Amino acid sequence: MGIGDDAAVLPAPDGRVVASTDLLVEDRHFRREWSSAREIGGKAAAQNMADIAAMGAVPTALLVGLAAPGDLPVAWALDMAAGMAEECARAGATVAGGDLSGAPLIMLTVTALGNLAGRAPVTRSGARPGDLVAVSGVLGHSAAGLALLRAGLSEPAGLVAAHRWPHPDYAAGPSAARLGATSMIDVSDGLAQDLGHLAEQSGVRIDVGSAQLPVSNTLRAAADALGKQDPLDWILAGGEDHALVATFPPVTALTGRWTVVGHVSDGQGVWVDLQRSERLSGWNHF
Amino acid sequence: MGIGDDAAVLPAPDGRVVASTDLLVEDRHFRREWSSAREIGGKAAAQNMADIAAMGAVPTALLVGLAAPGDLPVAWALDMAAGMAEECARAGATVAGGDLSGAPLIMLTVTALGNLAGRAPVTRSGARPGDLVAVSGVLGHSAAGLALLRAGLSEPAGLVAAHRWPHPDYAAGPSAARLGATSMIDVSDGLAQDLGHLAEQSGVRIDVGSAQLPVSNTLRAAADALGKQDPLDWILAGGEDHALVATFPPVTALTGRWTVVGHVSDGQGVWVDLQRSERLSGWNHF
Repeated sequence: MGIGDDAAVLPAPDGRVVASTDLLVEDRHFRREWSSAREIGGKAAAQNMADIAAMGAVPTALLVGLAAPGDLPVAWALDMAAGMAEECARAGATVAGGDLSGAPLIMLTVTALGNLAGRAPVTRSGARPGDLVAVSGVLGHSAAGLALLRAGLSEPAGLVAAHRWPHPDYAAGPSAARLGATSMIDVSDGLAQDLGHLAEQSGVRIDVGSAQLPVSNTLRAAADALGKQDPLDWILAGGEDHALVATFPPVTALTGRWTVVGHVSDGQGVWVDLQRSERLSGWNHF
Repeated sequence: MGIGDDAAVLPAPDGRVVASTDLLVEDRHFRREWSSAREIGGKAAAQNMADIAAMGAVPTALLVGLAAPGDLPVAWALDMAAGMAEECARAGATVAGGDLSGAPLIMLTVTALGNLAGRAPVTRSGARPGDLVAVSGVLGHSAAGLALLRAGLSEPAGLVAAHRWPHPDYAAGPSAARLGATSMIDVSDGLAQDLGHLAEQSGVRIDVGSAQLPVSNTLRAAADALGKQDPLDWILAGGEDHALVATFPPVTALTGRWTVVGHVSDGQGVWVDLQRSERLSGWNHF
């Protein structure tokens, strides 16, 4: 992963660069017994490149910091890097540089860079009353996979795989920008909490109809397998799928990858079926 | 340090961006009992922006990851960020974004971005036989300061301060590029080891004359205070001052900030007073 020089020189063809940093700490953001090194690398790359897509940009490069115990097998680090490279290839990006250090536990830092290709960035603050709210990508799969792992289950395998290595639809970000999205975020902390960021930073109210939320049959199967769990909780409060949720002017002709799940109005907060969503809480960072 | 959006959008006016990542792990790269939070933040920013300067670029922005125990005082994190912002201001850069996470110990990740302002990057591989070797900035001060701290001494205070918070001459990087530098690196692992990178990647031999190396009176005073220590060891094998060392065509009219310390010829390796420097070893990363 070295670059053989003090720094990498990367193209920034439109005269700007989009940049985002994520930290992943062992036993907090991943567990070596639950995920392979390749999956951990792939997921680290995915979650950070999703932040780039959520600005409407195309991911172009990653810089990676790996802090690890001296007795970490070299194969683990190489497999991790391979997963990262594989996910980068999905997005059209490359690993451009990095740093290594010893540490008592594994900590991964990923900085992703991206290209807006001449478009204005889509921020969290542009939603307007009357806008549609739409999602692209799966919701709740990663949270369901984590619940299955915690219960010692490995089926449905697709959900466990979605937890170990989500595959965001990176092209949805630039697609949203071209469609005129007024605000956007990737769902990393649960739909309710992430919509809360859009509502707060745009100064609007967001209403979601639970009947409009895409609940897959696999998600229902997992809920059944685990007994009483309502799959909507995974969608509203579970993160890490890195689906994109965006707001669009009401006249927008949305393409097939977007599902309308609600609308924007005057007011504040996120409302699900006309109830405030405060009782729902997503992933707690600290 | 949050940016309030998924990613930062930063200017990259010449259509490229220079990027570098560094990891700093508590008790390995810094000690809370030896340095204040402000000094640790300042040093983290300095060492990474020096990598940008070593490419001939101007540092423009930092992205910062802070992993820390939940009981870390908030004041520590704020002071660390203040030191970082202060060092950024020295370089004309800003802290543009970041991420926070819990962790059993403090780990800082800094990604620095920079602007080449239309110039070609100065890499490690362009040194040619006949070139001059010149340094800009102090050498050995940080290593001497560390030796003083390890011996329980706090004088000469300037050296201890240089260890806690080096102040690289960022403008020397673009200056070298404008003067036509053929290769460049910042001295992070000791002059001998870092010149070794230039020699190896350029496929040349580098000769240094110890009489030409700048040994300050303060450095001699520290050597005296610690007994038998030869100050040249700090210069050749001690890193973290982040001085710049570069090679220049022999006809270059070097400005006052550059001191010629040696020359490039056919062959390989770094030679000090005609002896191979392998016995000298700098900071060990792992």
